[in-house]
Amino acid sequence: MQKVFITGVAGFIGSNLADRLLADGVAVVGWDNFSTGQERFLENALRQPQFTLVRGDNLDLPALTHAMAGCDQVFHLAANADVRFGTEHPRKDLEQNTIATFNVLEAMRANGIKRIGFSSTGSTYGECAVIPTPEDAPFPVQTSLYGASKVAGEGMIAAYAEGFGFEAYIFRFVSILGERYTHGHVFDFYQQLLEHPDWLRILGDGSQRKSYLYVQDCVDAILHVVRAGTAASAKHRTQIYNLGTAEYVQVNDSVRFICNALGLKPELRYTGGDRGWIGDNPFIFLETKKIQATGWKPKLTIEQGIGRTLRWLQANRWVYEARPQK
Amino acid sequence: MQKVFITGVAGFIGSNLADRLLADGVAVVGWDNFSTGQERFLENALRQPQFTLVRGDNLDLPALTHAMAGCDQVFHLAANADVRFGTEHPRKDLEQNTIATFNVLEAMRANGIKRIGFSSTGSTYGECAVIPTPEDAPFPVQTSLYGASKVAGEGMIAAYAEGFGFEAYIFRFVSILGERYTHGHVFDFYQQLLEHPDWLRILGDGSQRKSYLYVQDCVDAILHVVRAGTAASAKHRTQIYNLGTAEYVQVNDSVRFICNALGLKPELRYTGGDRGWIGDNPFIFLETKKIQATGWKPKLTIEQGIGRTLRWLQANRWVYEARPQK
Repeated sequence: MQKVFITGVAGFIGSNLADRLLADGVAVVGWDNFSTGQERFLENALRQPQFTLVRGDNLDLPALTHAMAGCDQVFHLAANADVRFGTEHPRKDLEQNTIATFNVLEAMRANGIKRIGFSSTGSTYGECAVIPTPEDAPFPVQTSLYGASKVAGEGMIAAYAEGFGFEAYIFRFVSILGERYTHGHVFDFYQQLLEHPDWLRILGDGSQRKSYLYVQDCVDAILHVVRAGTAASAKHRTQIYNLGTAEYVQVNDSVRFICNALGLKPELRYTGGDRGWIGDNPFIFLETKKIQATGWKPKLTIEQGIGRTLRWLQANRWVYEARPQK
Repeated sequence: MQKVFITGVAGFIGSNLADRLLADGVAVVGWDNFSTGQERFLENALRQPQFTLVRGDNLDLPALTHAMAGCDQVFHLAANADVRFGTEHPRKDLEQNTIATFNVLEAMRANGIKRIGFSSTGSTYGECAVIPTPEDAPFPVQTSLYGASKVAGEGMIAAYAEGFGFEAYIFRFVSILGERYTHGHVFDFYQQLLEHPDWLRILGDGSQRKSYLYVQDCVDAILHVVRAGTAASAKHRTQIYNLGTAEYVQVNDSVRFICNALGLKPELRYTGGDRGWIGDNPFIFLETKKIQATGWKPKLTIEQGIGRTLRWLQANRWVYEARPQK
């Protein structure tokens, strides 16, 4: 039986990926340090006999190497995913993203595992002038510590693919939405509207244009590409795909979707300016022709994804209490 | 008086930069762990009253922060510069390049220093299909751990420029040649010809096309750009320049220059293949229009640079003994 190792298994995308693999009859070894992961996201997985959970941190290379033994491939999803507050703790991106990825690669090498799927980000493009932004956009100038740490991870993975014969699949995500989402603007807006339904604080002027992808579509895409396994025979054993939908929305559109769904008409209070925070990119829209050419396409629109996210948050208000403080 | 901090001051480029700055009346604090640096390269600098040498490693952040106190700007040149043997010790690039660069940035932040010049590399372009390769070449796929670690460094520097208002000058070098060169094909070929003048082992088939720049031209370019200080008023406070000459040579051309200069006609023994080692890029040629547009241009051709390098090696055969074992 195939045996897959997932870092960040108790996270948003990791737990959804684990559930999908387990449903497909794949054995999963899940690894998480539970710094932001939620044990409740693994309730289903923990009932499956072919699931093993190991608590550990990616900075503990011996434990990571030990836990990975016997696996065939790795999905490396664990990360500090906080793009906005990077400057408050620059070391976090270095440790939890860059050094963590190095350790994952070293643990794989020690175990003779060569296939890796990696969650990178559209933030690696910085503020690209080419929109929609393709995978071969001009060599970007980084604008966030998060993006910089993901570029660092991508680079090491590609160098291992070249130097050690690894087979690598790198996915540059837009923001992901859906069940088990605990982070981002829908989370923040719903939280605000629970606390004060009559007004909503919006960072920037609301005109920021952003792309989102529904988490089940994201998991579909990752598995579709990794299972095709085209990197094994390609010139460069690193395949890079943008993951998103062929659309974007304004923050103001999203506000409208959310308020309509909740039946609220709050006063909108804008903080002003064309971006929400230092390093915020006012227009994120990735070219997704490459992933679409593989036969994958998203099932939900952004509006539908926001709707599902909101319904999940309404049914799981415990995540607001469970979320660790920054 | 201006006071400049140089990491890797006992290295090839660092020591030449220090000598130039000292000649210009600038105070220099030099920092080196002497892992590959040579105290003899600092003989001139150590005679200057405005030069201070501090022994230390970039992984020691408190000592680095302390040493940097009172400086106005930083040239971060310290690195593991061994692109070829990266896969023998992958941790070295992570520690000495990526983490080291993070520490330099943190030490600057702690000291309120905001201007940095950084030695990056054309290796960050991987095997770019666009030749000559411009600064905004397509987002590269890394092919070496060295290139990956320099991309990681560039990314963090740019993120600090964006997030903390740093002013950053990143230079992507071709291979540098000249006085105090201790590393690369001229070094290896001359060493071989000292040991066995009648034959020469050449990695690959000798058709690899490479670019080189003379170290004094390199130092000229760095100071020309950093002194102009254009990043202070630019949209992105990170300025990136390729550094090289508008020409390239084949390894076979270089062999001819060297053999002619030495008056030798060795038997040429090729290891074969279109590249010298795993990850070797068979064609490196950077577009240098951007740096030339600033008014800088190189004074020496590649052939002249190789000639100077060879004469320096002939006069300084001690470097073959001083060079640390890998």
